[in-house]
Amino acid sequence: MPACQLAGRKHQPQNTVIELPTCRVGSEQVVIIAGPCAVENEDLMITLALALKEMGVHILRGGAFKPRTSPYSFQGLGEEGLRILARAREATGLPVITEVTDVRCLELVCRYSDIIQIGSRNMQNFVLLREVGRVSKPVLLKRGLSATIEEWLLAAEYILSEGNSRVMLCERGIRTFETYTRNTLDINAIPAVKELSHLPVIADPSHGTGRRSLVAPVARAAVAAGADGLMLEVHPRPEEALSDGPQSLLPAQLERLLAELRSLAGALGRQMVNPAYEKSGRDIVNRHRVV
Amino acid sequence: MPACQLAGRKHQPQNTVIELPTCRVGSEQVVIIAGPCAVENEDLMITLALALKEMGVHILRGGAFKPRTSPYSFQGLGEEGLRILARAREATGLPVITEVTDVRCLELVCRYSDIIQIGSRNMQNFVLLREVGRVSKPVLLKRGLSATIEEWLLAAEYILSEGNSRVMLCERGIRTFETYTRNTLDINAIPAVKELSHLPVIADPSHGTGRRSLVAPVARAAVAAGADGLMLEVHPRPEEALSDGPQSLLPAQLERLLAELRSLAGALGRQMVNPAYEKSGRDIVNRHRVV
Amino acid sequence: MPACQLAGRKHQPQNTVIELPTCRVGSEQVVIIAGPCAVENEDLMITLALALKEMGVHILRGGAFKPRTSPYSFQGLGEEGLRILARAREATGLPVITEVTDVRCLELVCRYSDIIQIGSRNMQNFVLLREVGRVSKPVLLKRGLSATIEEWLLAAEYILSEGNSRVMLCERGIRTFETYTRNTLDINAIPAVKELSHLPVIADPSHGTGRRSLVAPVARAAVAAGADGLMLEVHPRPEEALSDGPQSLLPAQLERLLAELRSLAGALGRQMVNPAYEKSGRDIVNRHRVV
Amino acid sequence: MPACQLAGRKHQPQNTVIELPTCRVGSEQVVIIAGPCAVENEDLMITLALALKEMGVHILRGGAFKPRTSPYSFQGLGEEGLRILARAREATGLPVITEVTDVRCLELVCRYSDIIQIGSRNMQNFVLLREVGRVSKPVLLKRGLSATIEEWLLAAEYILSEGNSRVMLCERGIRTFETYTRNTLDINAIPAVKELSHLPVIADPSHGTGRRSLVAPVARAAVAAGADGLMLEVHPRPEEALSDGPQSLLPAQLERLLAELRSLAGALGRQMVNPAYEKSGRDIVNRHRVV
Repeated sequence: MPACQLAGRKHQPQNTVIELPTCRVGSEQVVIIAGPCAVENEDLMITLALALKEMGVHILRGGAFKPRTSPYSFQGLGEEGLRILARAREATGLPVITEVTDVRCLELVCRYSDIIQIGSRNMQNFVLLREVGRVSKPVLLKRGLSATIEEWLLAAEYILSEGNSRVMLCERGIRTFETYTRNTLDINAIPAVKELSHLPVIADPSHGTGRRSLVAPVARAAVAAGADGLMLEVHPRPEEALSDGPQSLLPAQLERLLAELRSLAGALGRQMVNPAYEKSGRDIVNRHRVV
Repeated sequence: MPACQLAGRKHQPQNTVIELPTCRVGSEQVVIIAGPCAVENEDLMITLALALKEMGVHILRGGAFKPRTSPYSFQGLGEEGLRILARAREATGLPVITEVTDVRCLELVCRYSDIIQIGSRNMQNFVLLREVGRVSKPVLLKRGLSATIEEWLLAAEYILSEGNSRVMLCERGIRTFETYTRNTLDINAIPAVKELSHLPVIADPSHGTGRRSLVAPVARAAVAAGADGLMLEVHPRPEEALSDGPQSLLPAQLERLLAELRSLAGALGRQMVNPAYEKSGRDIVNRHRVV
Repeated sequence: MPACQLAGRKHQPQNTVIELPTCRVGSEQVVIIAGPCAVENEDLMITLALALKEMGVHILRGGAFKPRTSPYSFQGLGEEGLRILARAREATGLPVITEVTDVRCLELVCRYSDIIQIGSRNMQNFVLLREVGRVSKPVLLKRGLSATIEEWLLAAEYILSEGNSRVMLCERGIRTFETYTRNTLDINAIPAVKELSHLPVIADPSHGTGRRSLVAPVARAAVAAGADGLMLEVHPRPEEALSDGPQSLLPAQLERLLAELRSLAGALGRQMVNPAYEKSGRDIVNRHRVV
Repeated sequence: MPACQLAGRKHQPQNTVIELPTCRVGSEQVVIIAGPCAVENEDLMITLALALKEMGVHILRGGAFKPRTSPYSFQGLGEEGLRILARAREATGLPVITEVTDVRCLELVCRYSDIIQIGSRNMQNFVLLREVGRVSKPVLLKRGLSATIEEWLLAAEYILSEGNSRVMLCERGIRTFETYTRNTLDINAIPAVKELSHLPVIADPSHGTGRRSLVAPVARAAVAAGADGLMLEVHPRPEEALSDGPQSLLPAQLERLLAELRSLAGALGRQMVNPAYEKSGRDIVNRHRVV
């Protein structure tokens, strides 16, 4: 791995920690990013966002510009989606993350979003990487479907080398021969990246499995492997979702998973503290901490 | 998945539990199988086996017949290796597992070993599968390097359909494009197999990663994903090991990992009880000693 | 590629040529092996064999022991299949090839077959490789579904190191993420193996694609890439075939393909001469008859 | 394959033929695109271009904007590269092709280039696909490293659905577990795409293999499988090339390959006619046509 410099442990031995209003990504905290795959309408988004805040989620996700395999699939609400996302932030106080797909829309997305997401298909869109390297927002960089760990770190290097040091990586499953799951979450990559790089690593078991029933066990696995956080798709009526329904958790399933993760985090010497969540006293009541 | 019958949840909704002197594979217990990749000599094997027993390991592993990519690599001690393994069992009271590669040696292996292992390269050696389907020993069936989950379950079906119902599956990593790790442990496959089949699933993070530094985090991940146990390679001097040194844990690393796993198992509502281990009162102290 | 010795060009710079009654595998000749996937019954086999001889096929194929993913699929006729195959040889004068899957049946298979085939699933069945290394018949070694070129050559090395130097390699497609085709024929592997090794390379576009409509173009491609021959599945009524119907050519399709290949071979400075075929004067007419 | 509409054979049964000054892509002609990976300087480019014209190449290639895995690698000459490419066109009369990576540079690239190339890493850069769908230049769309055939056709659909019907597909190798070659050229994909779609298919054996010694055999294979043309990297001093030296042919190697391909094309009922080339009478002198 000689090619990766700024992203490497040699350049910076200590973990990069990204400070956000509700969490510190890259710290002892397990950070939860959750929301629907796509922003579909304001009512649904606000109601869901309030519920997620109540559960202790740290960051809201929701796609406004959706890169879809077919030109005939739902492509996202565009700027209207960004506005709805911003309203969900106002309603909850949670920071929001959304994907940018077009370099010409970057300024627009930065006006609305707290974190900029680069999707798998754009992991080697070097033009876009350079541009997000020049903005003052943290960036979440998803791994490409068949990107090696080295290529992924070099993609991060494009961002870092332009001056933006707040990069978090997201393992979201690689493409293999297996057809039972949509992708294969590369669990090895989580500790591998943590040993090679100081950047935080988030896992996305929703895309990483593509099947609702596998999301919770693989989410637990990612945390046990050392992930700094999870990105989870949730939808109140997955069968009606405009995108990725089969891999979206129901809100009640997410709530159960978060309780399990609190217990797990405790056993691993980590925690899931959330100021908003604590306020309502839930962490004391609900926690399943094991000493 | 219509083709798999006896291995399927439809045929048998409740988990298959395999009873062994030190553990129940497929129960709430997290079962630990550990030992060197290959049996190399009696002194090393007995000393290591006693240490492993002290740490709470449930089953001893050690290869006597080693399938090696090159005909010029160390091929195992053969029957002498089986004898040494049997002596390690006598010295510790722990059941042993070893691989059979030749259908003509099956009777011999059954004389010495408590569990019969079918390696990855033989997952579709249907002749061998049928024969182990006719013996009265439990069988551990490793997944082939590029076998789909369906093919793996159908390989188990070959064993089950001959009358041997005591089959455990072992996820040991699949082959992908990634070159940083030897294989990619398919974490998705663990809960996937648990939902499709009633058979126990063991994970092998040693082969699944091929790198010592990744074994512990991936072992924790496998347990968090619902694995019924782990198979781990351990060697007192990995740099001198005749096979798979780079992925073998040191005994002290294994001991530390087992302590972490006990804590993790507790948080997941599971346990790692071991009669031999309990006797020495170690489980109560639950110390995290590092040698 | 240091590990491969006897199979390497360094050990033997000139091509290995395997002499058979109808052809010289590894020479300037393009050798055609054809027949049904499985031997199903005597009538069909003899009728088809006579037609194949008429078309200029050099070697007859037909499986008697079929390794099948599911234990509930047709497993081949066993010794009866071998007998039928031998009768087809008598009727045509063409040498025959069939697969051995069980080391205990090797002697039996050698009594009936001119060439011994090791299937993909047994490419790393080292026990079987060693045993075929001790017989006096040529061996066709299929590449494993996810075997690297190095592993494939090392598997050949197991045979060579036991004294059998008449080994031919068979590229039959590797496993990738693509779902439109059954496998992905690795066209790169053909010239790669030819530069690394002196052993002949046969291509199997039937398994390599899994779709009848793709067999002819990929067969032409394999010859253009330097393959020493082709292995092709053919069946008079593919929809009734007990195995691999969707990838079997109809006899008329094979005949058309052979005509194309003759023209192609000529353009490449090679030929498809066949004593039996020449006698009937067909090579001179070089007709492209379609039945 | 229900999702693909405009790209499908159902929508348009007859082949799309793209008319260019020197060739008709998608016709009975085998079209040769050749040039250096990157435009490096004017002298080299013009000298090479004149030599390529003399050999019968139909289209000149050369990268001005190079997408590179590492931000520290040579990134191309940018607009200066485009200018040099345009001068090579003036000097030879051959149309030129170059890659666009940034949607904001599309207009610029269209001013200089006759054909617009979308590289593998941008196959699912849907923003860029839509924009090239609105220009009046033919587009060459490379397949992504792990794109399925369906995804590739749907990427073409993004371009077609915006009104640009002159799309040619380029198979340039997929990512597999094999490490001996840089990529694995998917030979199956060539006839597969030809049966599913009416769009022309070009093969790129330079990227498809990554090794100079394999380029010629795989180029022949691609033509034999039905490719409408080839894209080949050539450099007078590959060891000094700023990009992709190990896979670049020497001019003399390319000339030899073109002679072989003329012979091969003849045997397949196709041709490589080139007005510029014919004028110098070479086709008559050099041709190796086999009837």
